[in-house]
Amino acid sequence: MKVRVAIVGASGYSGEELLRLLLRHPGVEVTCVTSRQYAGQPIGAVFPRFMESRLTFSAPDSGRIAQEADVAFLALPHGLAHEFALPLLRSGLRVIDISADFRLRDARVYEATYKVPHPAPELLEEAVYGLPEWERSRLPAARLVACPGCYPTSVLLPALPVLAAGLASRTGIAVASLSGVSGAGRKVDLPYIFPECNESLRPYAVTGHRHVPEIEQQLALACGVPEVKITFVPHLVPVNRGIHSTILMDAAPGAGLDALEACLHAAYDAEPFVRVLPWGGLADTKHVVFTNMCEIGCAWDGRTGRIILSSAIDNLTKGASGQAVQCLNIAFGIEETTGLL
Amino acid sequence: MKVRVAIVGASGYSGEELLRLLLRHPGVEVTCVTSRQYAGQPIGAVFPRFMESRLTFSAPDSGRIAQEADVAFLALPHGLAHEFALPLLRSGLRVIDISADFRLRDARVYEATYKVPHPAPELLEEAVYGLPEWERSRLPAARLVACPGCYPTSVLLPALPVLAAGLASRTGIAVASLSGVSGAGRKVDLPYIFPECNESLRPYAVTGHRHVPEIEQQLALACGVPEVKITFVPHLVPVNRGIHSTILMDAAPGAGLDALEACLHAAYDAEPFVRVLPWGGLADTKHVVFTNMCEIGCAWDGRTGRIILSSAIDNLTKGASGQAVQCLNIAFGIEETTGLL
Amino acid sequence: MKVRVAIVGASGYSGEELLRLLLRHPGVEVTCVTSRQYAGQPIGAVFPRFMESRLTFSAPDSGRIAQEADVAFLALPHGLAHEFALPLLRSGLRVIDISADFRLRDARVYEATYKVPHPAPELLEEAVYGLPEWERSRLPAARLVACPGCYPTSVLLPALPVLAAGLASRTGIAVASLSGVSGAGRKVDLPYIFPECNESLRPYAVTGHRHVPEIEQQLALACGVPEVKITFVPHLVPVNRGIHSTILMDAAPGAGLDALEACLHAAYDAEPFVRVLPWGGLADTKHVVFTNMCEIGCAWDGRTGRIILSSAIDNLTKGASGQAVQCLNIAFGIEETTGLL
Amino acid sequence: MKVRVAIVGASGYSGEELLRLLLRHPGVEVTCVTSRQYAGQPIGAVFPRFMESRLTFSAPDSGRIAQEADVAFLALPHGLAHEFALPLLRSGLRVIDISADFRLRDARVYEATYKVPHPAPELLEEAVYGLPEWERSRLPAARLVACPGCYPTSVLLPALPVLAAGLASRTGIAVASLSGVSGAGRKVDLPYIFPECNESLRPYAVTGHRHVPEIEQQLALACGVPEVKITFVPHLVPVNRGIHSTILMDAAPGAGLDALEACLHAAYDAEPFVRVLPWGGLADTKHVVFTNMCEIGCAWDGRTGRIILSSAIDNLTKGASGQAVQCLNIAFGIEETTGLL
Repeated sequence: MKVRVAIVGASGYSGEELLRLLLRHPGVEVTCVTSRQYAGQPIGAVFPRFMESRLTFSAPDSGRIAQEADVAFLALPHGLAHEFALPLLRSGLRVIDISADFRLRDARVYEATYKVPHPAPELLEEAVYGLPEWERSRLPAARLVACPGCYPTSVLLPALPVLAAGLASRTGIAVASLSGVSGAGRKVDLPYIFPECNESLRPYAVTGHRHVPEIEQQLALACGVPEVKITFVPHLVPVNRGIHSTILMDAAPGAGLDALEACLHAAYDAEPFVRVLPWGGLADTKHVVFTNMCEIGCAWDGRTGRIILSSAIDNLTKGASGQAVQCLNIAFGIEETTGLL
Repeated sequence: MKVRVAIVGASGYSGEELLRLLLRHPGVEVTCVTSRQYAGQPIGAVFPRFMESRLTFSAPDSGRIAQEADVAFLALPHGLAHEFALPLLRSGLRVIDISADFRLRDARVYEATYKVPHPAPELLEEAVYGLPEWERSRLPAARLVACPGCYPTSVLLPALPVLAAGLASRTGIAVASLSGVSGAGRKVDLPYIFPECNESLRPYAVTGHRHVPEIEQQLALACGVPEVKITFVPHLVPVNRGIHSTILMDAAPGAGLDALEACLHAAYDAEPFVRVLPWGGLADTKHVVFTNMCEIGCAWDGRTGRIILSSAIDNLTKGASGQAVQCLNIAFGIEETTGLL
Repeated sequence: MKVRVAIVGASGYSGEELLRLLLRHPGVEVTCVTSRQYAGQPIGAVFPRFMESRLTFSAPDSGRIAQEADVAFLALPHGLAHEFALPLLRSGLRVIDISADFRLRDARVYEATYKVPHPAPELLEEAVYGLPEWERSRLPAARLVACPGCYPTSVLLPALPVLAAGLASRTGIAVASLSGVSGAGRKVDLPYIFPECNESLRPYAVTGHRHVPEIEQQLALACGVPEVKITFVPHLVPVNRGIHSTILMDAAPGAGLDALEACLHAAYDAEPFVRVLPWGGLADTKHVVFTNMCEIGCAWDGRTGRIILSSAIDNLTKGASGQAVQCLNIAFGIEETTGLL
Repeated sequence: MKVRVAIVGASGYSGEELLRLLLRHPGVEVTCVTSRQYAGQPIGAVFPRFMESRLTFSAPDSGRIAQEADVAFLALPHGLAHEFALPLLRSGLRVIDISADFRLRDARVYEATYKVPHPAPELLEEAVYGLPEWERSRLPAARLVACPGCYPTSVLLPALPVLAAGLASRTGIAVASLSGVSGAGRKVDLPYIFPECNESLRPYAVTGHRHVPEIEQQLALACGVPEVKITFVPHLVPVNRGIHSTILMDAAPGAGLDALEACLHAAYDAEPFVRVLPWGGLADTKHVVFTNMCEIGCAWDGRTGRIILSSAIDNLTKGASGQAVQCLNIAFGIEETTGLL
């Protein structure tokens, strides 16, 4: 018996990546793919890569989805997920949300970040943060999974074990991330046309990126403290896919490279989708694009006493749709790597 | 009367950029271009861009250079510049060195950094650091100019005025820089072939890049202190030209965005090759490639009390050959922007 | 006395390139820069590269332009140039049009190509085709210059001398051209966003590109025949700037490589902006970007009797704005290479 | 029972792609991976993407391979395949060669093309050309499979049915192909370093590319004629993966677009790895990279009577390793698409 899957809002890059992964996943059947803009068109008309599929975009309709699917992936802009999450959950479906809507536990933080009141605060309590390496045990029972953002995934996987183990200070953390342009979505806007991005290197949103509260929330939870504050500087760079994050932390007294490496290996050696590089290795997005892997490297700067973590993911796979499929596998008792190798 | 110019070691990317700038410079005549590898070949055979030139590479020969030129640019790998600097200076030429050999004041720091004893420590005292915005007054009398490295230029221009004005702490400075691949030189090595760089984002040399001592030396001098230590993380990204640096510093008490902007404007509003962006502007290499401009943006993160500076330069122009030409102009009393607009 | 220049429609990539070239041109003064969209904004707000300029976009107004300028460059979408060309010519200005509106001699061909009647057919007769290498003598007296399209420039420069000399058949000509994405203009449309162009190779408009009638018209004129027909296949490839064209022609009996090379050298050895590569050389856009040069290579395939010409230009410089400045220089008696080296 | 597979010469890009495909192929077990250069190192040390694998490169040894494998893929430079093909075939293994050594039927053509005598002409007779869409029936019994080159795959798939059906003239065929840089192999040479390829468009080998005899041989066989001659112009363009070919042919009298489309659909609608685009569609490598698909578009230029075919493949997948795996599947009676979707 295959799991019947709906993809709501499938015409963006996250939706395309979900289709790429799920159409070849042996344990699921994609039964419903929605897009307001392209309703009525075969998915191959929008993504020629899928021309061999017979699936057709339909206008999103919770009633129909509830009949056709056991689980729905929501790949919508923020602020819209609740329109489907609420009725689908009520109909007994499980919901895996790729948007930002259920990641933050505190509705006030959501409102401060997204400048609109949270549309369904009653769901925040039960939403499970879909970072399997840290929340695996809660996923089998989860009705609503809130998949992490791409930047948070790239920062949390390297930083969480180090902070949780007390190897670094919780203050003064600084992150410089580089993102490929697909991270901006399939957005038709002047800053994203080819000649504006190619041969260009630039930071953006340096004092208020929307992913900061999410990262800080999860770091604080891992440290068991009310608050962690980071400096986060994202940059847009001319690649299609991939996020690279460099994370600087002040080492705790006595915490050198050996302890750091031992900590990362202990956290991740049994994980199928996290690779801790051998000594001196530095993460490179080229090694992970089109995979669900997070590659982590670490170094220790004795001169300044700083830990330097580097991580690389594919923003569309481990940073979004691949991680969502990983959550589905766990939630439905399917072997975790199915469809992801 | 045109200044007669020799370019020693002209077959790399810095040499090519020197040729691009000097061949159209109205105040100079390029009389001698050397390359061991390509001796005897017209420069257009190596760089088709210059096929209209009649210049031919010759094997480097100090005697001949001394006869043919008033000033020599040295664009050699580190460790070799002194072979030409010593005899040429003795012959009365002025020398503008683009290599790393005369940037560090302390021969022991050079040896620790480059793993060889400094070959001509007697010259370190008189070498003038060729960052015109901060050393302009010393250039007219300089016999030996040591042009800054590409990363140092991109870090020092934004950081120096802020630190010199006491607006930020001298400890805890962190820099994340992104460099185009021409920064590695015209080097034929596996990590630099196209498929290994394109669609790749990766840091390198995170705990010991050779430009760190140079940056720290100049920061300490500006602050009037014996030592400043920074964390410096360079990344290789898939563009041809350009360096972007993001510099994080802890703001001094009371030093907010207004003071920061006032400081940068005071330092650079009269400079022809530094552009301080208006409020909220963030530097983008796309605005400066193929120019000698350094673009600087600044932000202030109230949440963490950090100053965030961003800078963009063309690594081959303001980061190397363009800045060298700017030094030549000043040194020889030519209008500073000649050949550089 | 500097020539006073207006740029009408300066907010696209051709306009930006005109500004780049003219702001440093010693013989002209840019007095007026128009843009409906950005009227009132300094040009540096749209193109940070020009932040040091005091020029401000104004709404286009023929009366004002006529007062402030001696010559106007029109960098408008097709179909609009006559709105300014007519009144400006009447006011005694000279007009250099970069759009497609005055390139075709026959208004019926224009209508068939652009699907609208020609808005000012009375001007077609006097418009001079702004390909200086072939029309130089007519430019000093020209009131209205119609600058060639980017693809036509890249095809005509190599093909014209060969066909005019009778070295190749006028039938069966096939052209495969590759264009960087700036060739599509500063156009905000899904096919041109970075992730849709990067790592993508694709042809377009293979049976009806609008530049075909222009190419065919000029080839027929050069051959002195009523009609030449070509097959023209343009491709979009992930570079910012540059057009490469490969042109296949059946060699005339007895016309081998020697004759071919002699013909090209005879046509262009005295030209400042055409480079005929030595034997076996093949044109590479990398050698010409950010220059006004057209690089031409040629080969002869003895097996099939075909001549293979290759050409490379910067689509924004020799393919548009640089060539327009070259025309201005000739038209106003300024040394032809001024501002273009 | 899994098929035991050896990969001989696995340290290039074709080898890496074979590893990517075969490590997740459910019907095979990779038992032996050879590389002289990296013998003794785990494959993850060379390709971090495979760090989770326990495979280690060994020095190539036919005796050992014969013991450990049922089939060997040879991914060697031309001229070397016979050193392994001969002993392995003698030992009863099947051999799938990705090099050029067994593609040409005539040893004299091989010698003329590769400038060395064919090292094992006795094998040419029995080698099966590994283009499954045209040689599927011969593959189950094949001992030695000669996989097509990347350019030939991209040209033959669109051209063969059209020529075989007599819809186009066999003379005057012209092909313009664009290749990503991985097509040059993992070759450390100046023309292939990033700054020499990025922002560069250039043809190469325009009168004598080594793939021409292979293409011509297969076209002639399909047409049942002794000889077909084509003009073939390959270009190097800045993408990692992908080949795009545009093929021009003179339409036979009466052969219009309808006949052309019907012909292509008849040839390929049942094929799992060839996609014929709907009317007006033009092939784009972006749709096929990281897949084994060949995408074909067609157009008909009524003005010149020319057929314009376009095709896109991933040069490393359908153009090399994916097609080799497809051949393995067929040869061993495994479902053809296994491991390739």
